[in-house]
Parts: sequence; C-alpha cells; structure tokens
Amino acid sequence: MNDFGKIFRFTTFGESHGKTIGVVIDGVPAGLNIDEEFIQSEMDRRRPGKNKFATQRNEADKVEILSGVFEGKSTGTPIAMVIFNTNQKSRDYSNIKDIFRPGHADFTYWHKYGIRDYRGGGRSSARETAARVAAGAVAKMILKEFNIEIKAGVVEIGGIRAEAEDFDYAKESEIFALDKNVEKKWMDLIDKAKNEHNSLGGVVKLKIKNLPVGLGEPVYYKLDNVLASALVSINAVKGVYIGNSEAHKLTGLENNDEISKDGFLSNNAGGVLGGISNGEDVDVEIYFKPTPSIFKPQKSVDINGNEVEVNLKGRHDPIVAIRGSVVAEAMAACVVADMLMLNATRTIERLKKVYHN
Amino acid sequence: MNDFGKIFRFTTFGESHGKTIGVVIDGVPAGLNIDEEFIQSEMDRRRPGKNKFATQRNEADKVEILSGVFEGKSTGTPIAMVIFNTNQKSRDYSNIKDIFRPGHADFTYWHKYGIRDYRGGGRSSARETAARVAAGAVAKMILKEFNIEIKAGVVEIGGIRAEAEDFDYAKESEIFALDKNVEKKWMDLIDKAKNEHNSLGGVVKLKIKNLPVGLGEPVYYKLDNVLASALVSINAVKGVYIGNSEAHKLTGLENNDEISKDGFLSNNAGGVLGGISNGEDVDVEIYFKPTPSIFKPQKSVDINGNEVEVNLKGRHDPIVAIRGSVVAEAMAACVVADMLMLNATRTIERLKKVYHN
Amino acid sequence: MNDFGKIFRFTTFGESHGKTIGVVIDGVPAGLNIDEEFIQSEMDRRRPGKNKFATQRNEADKVEILSGVFEGKSTGTPIAMVIFNTNQKSRDYSNIKDIFRPGHADFTYWHKYGIRDYRGGGRSSARETAARVAAGAVAKMILKEFNIEIKAGVVEIGGIRAEAEDFDYAKESEIFALDKNVEKKWMDLIDKAKNEHNSLGGVVKLKIKNLPVGLGEPVYYKLDNVLASALVSINAVKGVYIGNSEAHKLTGLENNDEISKDGFLSNNAGGVLGGISNGEDVDVEIYFKPTPSIFKPQKSVDINGNEVEVNLKGRHDPIVAIRGSVVAEAMAACVVADMLMLNATRTIERLKKVYHN
Amino acid sequence: MNDFGKIFRFTTFGESHGKTIGVVIDGVPAGLNIDEEFIQSEMDRRRPGKNKFATQRNEADKVEILSGVFEGKSTGTPIAMVIFNTNQKSRDYSNIKDIFRPGHADFTYWHKYGIRDYRGGGRSSARETAARVAAGAVAKMILKEFNIEIKAGVVEIGGIRAEAEDFDYAKESEIFALDKNVEKKWMDLIDKAKNEHNSLGGVVKLKIKNLPVGLGEPVYYKLDNVLASALVSINAVKGVYIGNSEAHKLTGLENNDEISKDGFLSNNAGGVLGGISNGEDVDVEIYFKPTPSIFKPQKSVDINGNEVEVNLKGRHDPIVAIRGSVVAEAMAACVVADMLMLNATRTIERLKKVYHN
Repeated sequence: MNDFGKIFRFTTFGESHGKTIGVVIDGVPAGLNIDEEFIQSEMDRRRPGKNKFATQRNEADKVEILSGVFEGKSTGTPIAMVIFNTNQKSRDYSNIKDIFRPGHADFTYWHKYGIRDYRGGGRSSARETAARVAAGAVAKMILKEFNIEIKAGVVEIGGIRAEAEDFDYAKESEIFALDKNVEKKWMDLIDKAKNEHNSLGGVVKLKIKNLPVGLGEPVYYKLDNVLASALVSINAVKGVYIGNSEAHKLTGLENNDEISKDGFLSNNAGGVLGGISNGEDVDVEIYFKPTPSIFKPQKSVDINGNEVEVNLKGRHDPIVAIRGSVVAEAMAACVVADMLMLNATRTIERLKKVYHN
Repeated sequence: MNDFGKIFRFTTFGESHGKTIGVVIDGVPAGLNIDEEFIQSEMDRRRPGKNKFATQRNEADKVEILSGVFEGKSTGTPIAMVIFNTNQKSRDYSNIKDIFRPGHADFTYWHKYGIRDYRGGGRSSARETAARVAAGAVAKMILKEFNIEIKAGVVEIGGIRAEAEDFDYAKESEIFALDKNVEKKWMDLIDKAKNEHNSLGGVVKLKIKNLPVGLGEPVYYKLDNVLASALVSINAVKGVYIGNSEAHKLTGLENNDEISKDGFLSNNAGGVLGGISNGEDVDVEIYFKPTPSIFKPQKSVDINGNEVEVNLKGRHDPIVAIRGSVVAEAMAACVVADMLMLNATRTIERLKKVYHN
Repeated sequence: MNDFGKIFRFTTFGESHGKTIGVVIDGVPAGLNIDEEFIQSEMDRRRPGKNKFATQRNEADKVEILSGVFEGKSTGTPIAMVIFNTNQKSRDYSNIKDIFRPGHADFTYWHKYGIRDYRGGGRSSARETAARVAAGAVAKMILKEFNIEIKAGVVEIGGIRAEAEDFDYAKESEIFALDKNVEKKWMDLIDKAKNEHNSLGGVVKLKIKNLPVGLGEPVYYKLDNVLASALVSINAVKGVYIGNSEAHKLTGLENNDEISKDGFLSNNAGGVLGGISNGEDVDVEIYFKPTPSIFKPQKSVDINGNEVEVNLKGRHDPIVAIRGSVVAEAMAACVVADMLMLNATRTIERLKKVYHN
Repeated sequence: MNDFGKIFRFTTFGESHGKTIGVVIDGVPAGLNIDEEFIQSEMDRRRPGKNKFATQRNEADKVEILSGVFEGKSTGTPIAMVIFNTNQKSRDYSNIKDIFRPGHADFTYWHKYGIRDYRGGGRSSARETAARVAAGAVAKMILKEFNIEIKAGVVEIGGIRAEAEDFDYAKESEIFALDKNVEKKWMDLIDKAKNEHNSLGGVVKLKIKNLPVGLGEPVYYKLDNVLASALVSINAVKGVYIGNSEAHKLTGLENNDEISKDGFLSNNAGGVLGGISNGEDVDVEIYFKPTPSIFKPQKSVDINGNEVEVNLKGRHDPIVAIRGSVVAEAMAACVVADMLMLNATRTIERLKKVYHN
C-alpha cells in the first residue's frame, strides 16, 4: 500500500532499477506558490554520491513536475513528480541473482510476491525515499505559510551521543551532525567502517517548531502515532521515541511538564499530549539500524534453499541515518500538513470561518 | 479519527464518564466461532481494580455483543460491542473543573475542540482502551485459526530491567512480569510510588509467534510501521522499537541476521525485513511514560489562563504499563489480522486459490 | 464495508432481528448544538407502522445517544447512537428458514457469507436504514448552520408522474407526495397493491438548496458520483439521475445552461458541473424498485437447491419509495456535510482563514 | 480526490494541456502477465480522432509503463503508466481565457480552486479518462484469469432506442452501436449534429458476464452503488440504472426474478441482490448528456462577472457517449477487480484456503 495521508495524501511508485521513481500528491491546496528550486534543493540534500560519507551511487535526482502546477502555482489537482533513474545501467547481477542478502528485504519480497527483481533492491531500495523527499518539499511549502519549521540532524553514531543539539549547524555539516564537537569522532568512525566494508547505525533527532496547539486526531490518527508510522516506514528505521527518551525510567512527578502562563515549564512530552500538539516543540528520536549492505562474507541461502556464502561488491552507504534524516524531515512535513488540514474542520466555529465572511 | 485498519477495521467510541464505551468491528470473516467467554477473559486481564498494583476504579467491564454474531458464529456483518460504564457516578469535580492537569490531555482537547468534559479524561481516558481489548479479542480468535500467538509482558520498571523473558510466567504474574526474579523488586517500587502518590514508567515487550512469512504491505503499510502506529496510539506510550533495541549502536556485520536452511541464525531484525514478516518471532519493545495522575502539588493554569496549583485526589494507577501490555497485545492482534487479510490477495495465484477449486 | 464518508464518516451496525441497530459518526465538528428532539423527529418520519401506506411493523425507533455529546453540544469525539429493536419477537420462521425469497438478498448473503440469518432480512433489511436517518439528522444540524436545506418527495408511483413539485406539501402528505393532485390516485394504487398482496415501485425527487459553489472533490469524489453512491446504496434503489432526466435525449444547445450575471438561466445540470456544485439547486431523481416482499406464490429454491414455491405471510410495505425518501434525504445530508468539510481546505487562502485571525 | 478503489486502487493525474496524464495502480496482484499490446489496444478504442464520429483531436495516446512490471509480469508494486500529451500546442486561447463556457466545469473549478487553467478543460477534460482506460486494461487482465467479461455499447442516441443488444456487433461498429439496424439512423443524427455545430446525448449499456456469486460489500460498498459511483464519475454521465430500467414502474410480482434450479428465470435485478452479485449478468444503463462544447453563440459571463456571448471554435466531439462506453468498461473492470479481492477474505474458510495447503 503505497499511499500515505488522509487529505494531504501522496502515493509513490518506482523501483531502484526501473525507468523512474515518482510520487503523486493529492490534496495540495490550490494557490500555493510552488518553488521548483526548493524542491530540487531538498532532493540534493538527500542525494547519494555527494561526499564520501554516503553511497557513491551518483544520480542527478532531477525532479520533473508532470501535473498540478500552472504558472507557478498549485491548481488543486494532483501534483505528479518523477525522477528518472539515470544510473540503472545493467550491471552483472549473476552472482547475486538468486541469493538472499542478509538484512535485506529480498527474502521477504520473494516470499510475499513470488517475484524477484534481482537488479537491486527494487521497490525496497532506499532509492524509493527520493520520492518521499519530493512530497515532503511540497508539504514544507504549505508549512512555511504557517511558519512551521521542521529540522533534523544526527544525534548518535556508533553509540557515541551528541552533547549539543545545534540544528543550524546540522544544516551545514557534511554528516548533518547536531554537535560540532563530536562530528570529527563520528567521521572517523564512518571512515573506519567504510574501510572495513562494514556499516554503522545511528540516531536522528527531529524537531518541529511553531506548531499550533491542536494538531492530531485522536484516538488512532494522533500526531504521535502517525509520526511513528511515517518514520518507521522509512528504510532501516527500527524505532522512534517522542519526547524525553528516558520517560519510561522516570516517575510521574519527574516526567509531568508543569504549566505556567507562558507555556510549559519543561518538555518531556515532546510537544504532544493525548496525541495532540500542545504548542511546544515536537521532539522525536529515530533509531536507524546499520546499512545491511556490507562487503563481508555472510551465510545465507538462495531461492532454492541451498546454503551459500554471500560476497557483495560495489558501492555502499556506510550509514543510512545521515541521509535518512532528510527523509525523516520529509515524512514529518507530510504528516503535519495533513494534520493541519484535518484539524481545520474540527469545530463548527472554524468551519464557519471558512465559509462566512 | 477513531477507526483503525483497512480490512479488519474497528471504530471505537465513548468517554470515561459517559454511558458506555464501545467498538464496531467491520471485516471479521463470516463463520468464525465467537467465544464470548474468551472476550470477557481478555477484558478481565485489562480490568482495573483487580489488585493493588492497578487503579482501584472497579468496573465489571462486562462486554455485550450487539450485532454481527448469530448462533455463536460471526455473520460477516459488523460486530458491535459495548461496555456500560457502571462506575461513573457524579463525583464532585468542582475543584478540577477548569484546571489543566499536568501530563494530561485536557489542555490539548480544550484547545482543539473548545470543549471540556471535566468529569474525567473523557475520550482521552485510558478507559477507551477497554474497547480496543474487545476488538483485539476478536482478532485473536482469527489468529488462532492460523496458530498465531501474541504475548506481552513487562520487561522494565523504574529503570530496572528484566534478565529473563518468560512469557508464560507473565501470564500468571499479578504485574505481568517477564522475569520472576525481579518481580518482587518491581512490586516494591510500585508500592513505594503508590504510597508517595507518585507513579512509574515502564517497558513492555511484545512477541508475535508463528507468523507466516509475507505479512506487511510496503511501503507505507508495512508490518512494522503499522505496529508502531497501533502501539504509539495507546495512552502513555511514547516509543517503540522493533527487534534488538540496540541495533542503532551496532555495525552491519553485528546486526545482520545470517540465514541457514533452517531459518535465520539470529533475530536482531525482530522478525521484519523491508516491512514484511520473515517468519521469525516479531519482537517489539514499547515504552510507557509514568501515569500523569499523581497526587502531588503541581503548577498549572486554568482555562482562563490563571496560574494555579493542582492537587488531585482519588484513585490512580501507579503504573499504566502493566495494564497497557494487555492493550498492546490487542492492538497487535488487530494489526496482524488485517495484514493476514491484505496479504491474501497479493499474488494472482493466491487469489485463484480462493475462487477456483 | 459499513462506513461512509471521508471526514464526516459514519459506520452502521445491527440486524433487523438482533438486539439493536446503531451508528457511530466520526468527524462531527465540536461545539454543534445537538437537538435530540430533531433527531427523533427524523426517525419518526421514516418509522414504519405510522399509517396504512407503510409496513405495519411498529417500532418506537427511540434513539439513544451513547457518546460524543456533552451538555447538549457535540464534543468532537464519535457520536454513537443506538435504536433498540423492540419488535423482534421470535416468530415462527420454519416455513421460510431455508428458502430464498425472490427479489431478496438472502440468496446472495448465503452465497457470500455462508451464513443465513433466517429471522428476517438481517443486515440486508430496510431496518438498517434507520441508522442512516440518525446519522443524517446530525448532518442536517451541521447544514443548518450554513442554511443548506435538503428535501425529498415522491414524484412517481406506478408509472404515474407528478405534474407539480411541491416540497412543502410533501412534508405534510402521508405519502410524501410532491403533487397534491395526483396524491389520491397514488393512494388508490397503493391500496390496490396492498389488497392484492402486491407492491409498487416509485421515483423520489431530492432537492438540495443553498449549497455554496465549490462542493465536490474531482475526479472520483465528485458531488454527483458520491451522491449516486450514497443513494444507490439504499435498499431497493436501482438508479439515479442528476438534473434533467431527459438530458441524454437532448442536444448540447438544448441542454447547456446559459449563464447571466444573476446565475444560470436554466438548471438542466441539476446544480453540478464537473462534479462540483455550481450554486443552483441540486436535483436528483432516485428510482426505487417495488418491495420484493409480496404475498403471492413464487417459484424459488431452498438452500439445498430444491425447487420450492414461496408463500410469504405477515406484514409488508406496499411501496418502499415513500419511506425511502427520508433515507435519501439522510444520505444526501451526510454527503453534503462531508463535502463541506473536504472543500474547506482546498485553497491555501481558506486554510489560512482558519488559523490566522 | 483522485483515487478510486480499496484494494485495487488507482490514482490518476494530469491535465489536458499539461505534459502528461497518468495513473498509478496499487494492489495489482503479483505474477499477472501484463500484456502491453492489450493495454494499447484499449487506449486505441477510446482514442479521439479515429473517425468523423469523434473529436478530431488526434493523439497517439501511447502508454508508457514506468514501474511495477518486470520481465512481463506484475511485481506487486505500483504500476505507473503515463501518456504524454503530444497535441497540446499552445493555441490562442485569448478569446476564451476569461470566459466560462456553458455546460463546462470551468465555472465551478474557478470558484472552488480560484485557479483557471484556460488552456483547455485542464483536469476536468475528458482527456483524463484516458488514464482510467489504462487502469481498466490492467483490471481486465485480472478478470480474464477468472473468465469475467465486460462489454459495453451504445443503446440510444438522440432519443432513438436500439431494439437489439448485440455486444459483438458493438465491438466492430464505428460508433459502438448495439443494434446494426439503427446504426445508420444514429450516424445520420450525428452527422447532422456535427454539421450544425451541435451535439447529442446518449445511453450506454454495460454488461458484466460470468461474475461469481458473492461480489459486493454491503452496506456502503455494494457492487451496485460502487458501480454507480464509478460510472457517474465519468465526464458527462448524469445517471445510471442497474437492471431493468422500468423497474420503478413495475409491481413486485412483475419485477421479482423467480428462481429455479438452473438459476434465475428473469433478470430484472440486473445481476445484483442486496448489493451482491447473484451470478446473472450485471446490466447497467448509463446516461450521457450531450457534449457541452458546441459552436453556437451562447450567453455566459466572464471571471469578472460581465455578461458575454461565447463563441467556441475548434474541434469537438459531437457525442461523448460513444467513447464514454470504453471508459465505462474500464471503470467497471476496476470495480469488479476490487470486489473480487475484497470478497476473497469474507469467510474464514476462504481465508484458510489461501494460507493452508
């Protein structure tokens, strides 16, 4: 099921080695200025091959808008965007054609669909996330009209935790590091992993600022559980935590955020109470497993059930969490855009505001 | 938005102090034996007032089936169930009528809906989860036909971690403890918190056994992201982790699960690859914050923006994670039932099996 | 699939001879005055047993609100309503227990679900439509805030067509006749059919007034196609026509509605262009087949495939179109309420109106 | 809202004068043989410019598959298809740029979205239906595996009704005529309308053969109401009727279909009882209004509210019902494919068939 969202709803398609990947966004309000350069700049942030800390697959990732935009504005009709795969030259896959790679989805896709697209990850490839970033860029343009900001950065690599959370610095950092002081240490870890043909996990921190109070639709389409759904759907994400990630170790007295006239006196809740935004920053931690593609011999089986040793070769991304942070921002932006629209009609007074003058 | 699921889809309704809470389940296959005693036994597991480790609100939580069952079997039409609130006598709420309780949803509900149901948590109360347990009980009856089992227990309280994971023991334990050896220590912690009018957070471990390979619908309705959504939607849940909760600290070599003829040689993935079940146990950790209702003075504001001191009184649940584990099982059961049906038509061969003889 | 709508979404449940039928409405904006007497008065309009022109099944059809309303206002949480079946005494069904009644759904339900609720129509009974009327009554309260009116009446019975369309008269008429002059002729036809143990088809005309321009969500959730879906889902409805029901016989020049400063100069379109309301009255014709329950001998088969003669006895409704007109209004009200909310966020300007002051 | 269906769900995008129109189909079972030539042949049936009885806009309508197919088979991932608009050369639209054309959607789109794509119908153009035909072609490939056939033809033009219903002849006929004997008369009518710069309405008959008993999901996703929704969503369709279109004039005794061992003895029901297929042919009549684009002077207003006379020029389609019949087949095919999959899990026995051997 390749769609996400209720009102701001996008559908993605495409495989890593097919002609194109793409997205169709339904529900973008008409009259929004569509800044194609901004969309492209978001794509570029996620793009592989930028530096040695990411996969060397080098794709231009040029987005082409096919519909829904006229004279620079959204028309209210579906916005379709495609990114042509320019780098899918047919390599020789004969050595892995029938082999299940440990940690990869080829085992489960094979069993589910009875089909094996041996040319690469197919639909399960992280390449699919480029389409999410394009959708997220459009969502961010909506959020900008409401001054809502979404930022993400890397807060932990290889078990080493950042001490600062500087989202401005993360924007500049080659590895989206939230802490300048540990950045070098992380880079060394990544270099090492890369040289050893191994990979690393990591933790991304996501922050949503200036959210109005009231976003989130209890009890099954809450802000937090939909964010959880959106983020865990990203390749390699295994967990999420909203707010203070030690909350489960605390007592009620320690964890409750007291309230003053000027707002909450702390933010253990991570900006969400009862599944609804409370006006504080929404803070989420996102846990990425290490990239499964490594170039070490590993035990596996082939599609006939024979035991084999897998020896992958080629390019690989030593740590997906870095680029994953861009995808996390995109998914969160889509969730918030959806919530903004859903909440618009939750009181009869708001609904009247729309139609009466 | 009070519905969950695509094919096995349930909708809940009702407030903690209204006449009733209830659920309507659409999509239950016809011909299923509906065991009312089993449903009631599941309700009883979640029921408050059972022992001193849970809230003393004492509700019979008697489920009444209103529709969808005839002569002991599901008919394929919606199964509606209600649980009448027998304990909603009108207390004197005048002292908290206009006050926002720290850690509670009344602040956000007020801002979202402009309505305050001061009699209790209203729809945001944990009482709503009783309806989920009823839905989950029906889902479990479907899963039983496929030998799929769902189990949960408490793995951490107050920062103290279990060393064993004995799901059979958890069934017997008053506090659903997974480890007999730490049970006493946890009980002491709970007693202490209770006596101090404080509360505790905790971690629940959920296990799904005997899942066929192939469940989960990439790329936005994967098994793991829908489980994340379902579980984070439960009151007080702030995070989830699928598989080894240290995965983000590991290298690819450490984290990848190698494969042999007889299955996977480890299960760091927690039974999910690419969002699809791989045949291994699905393992999820669920992080509960401490109950926000505590009887300590706390700073807050009232609906007019005046600063006040909150002093709650009454009964409270010192740790929601315990009863929350029953709700987690229920939500997981609903997710798996849905996935089982969605996957049934994902290959043309499976679809033919249904219609051809 | 027992839910209808996207934002204003309702789910119905219950069988004709079960304990209750009911509805859960999700998405009612908070702060709406809920007038229980109005809901009941709508139920009474549809209620059987009122007069000799309808079925003699006599149900009080008393609606009980279970949730979502507090101190007379909607709270934004699901509104659940039930109507207990007081008249489901266990008749002796032995003579029709295993027989498929011509024109009835028992044949198809049996083949689809493998289950036979022989006590009556079960879920396929027109009794289910009482729950729709309750939902429609709530929808109408929303529409009232926007001055939108929905009216319906009978325009044809037994092939005899009304010449006038007086919706005010229809409200008073025992048979919801739109034309006082043919009313007596229709009543005679109904009497005759009743005495002959036969039944009649009919045509209902539905009119929606004061709809703002812009409602309807192209290209698959248009105002007209969703109305068609809503109306054809009503028991015994076999067809619908939006606008001038001779349009297919006309030329473009005849059918196009010219436009002046003051609006359209005709309304062949029935108030819908491109699936979106154009500000004119929405006019729909709804075609009801004759009630299948008749007391004449008919050829049929039983569940074992044996040929039998069916001889039904009991009460029956000589013409469902009459009461069906009330259900049609209800369904249309739900559609319009949904469209009103969906349209609210279709331009960035409208969305800003909601959030900015 | 540009998606249709639950399991077999497609989303279309694109405007008549944009770069492309397209469709993404989610839920196609894996392992289906995808016959690109068949898809193209379906496109060609709908294609404009084929002969003098249709619009002269001449598009190659070449479909390109972007994803979801590998080595000739569906992979279970979304199938995206695009049709590039090769004929959208920028004409001079200055004369109609600001004018609302009678009978067209530009009036309502303008009011809804505040945007005017003056280059043509934009999203409301019948060109959008090409994407539906591509989706329908894939649906038909699924249906073929179950021997289900969908056929349509023209049964009435300009008020003249066919006397025969020969679906095989309709396939050959230039105007998809169901009756060879009236074909010439219809052609003359069309010629006349064309020469007078006028247009004609018509009625299409749709037949679905070999449907298994049991398709359709009561009570809001029934076979008939979803067909109604699908068909009325097609441009220019104003009404539908399932089964004998005189049913509302009949008595119950006349209309009920008696049953014998070998099936139903008549088919007034049009193959649907209680919203579920009964094994007989599904028969639907579809009412098309005349094409609104005519080249006669008509009164209208411009976007500033000034009264103007519209004088359209260019190519036009004298009768949309003809090509509309191809679109009707496509939509019906999509509905049936969806229903086939939804029904697959409606009994616990069918569900077991899928998973057990």
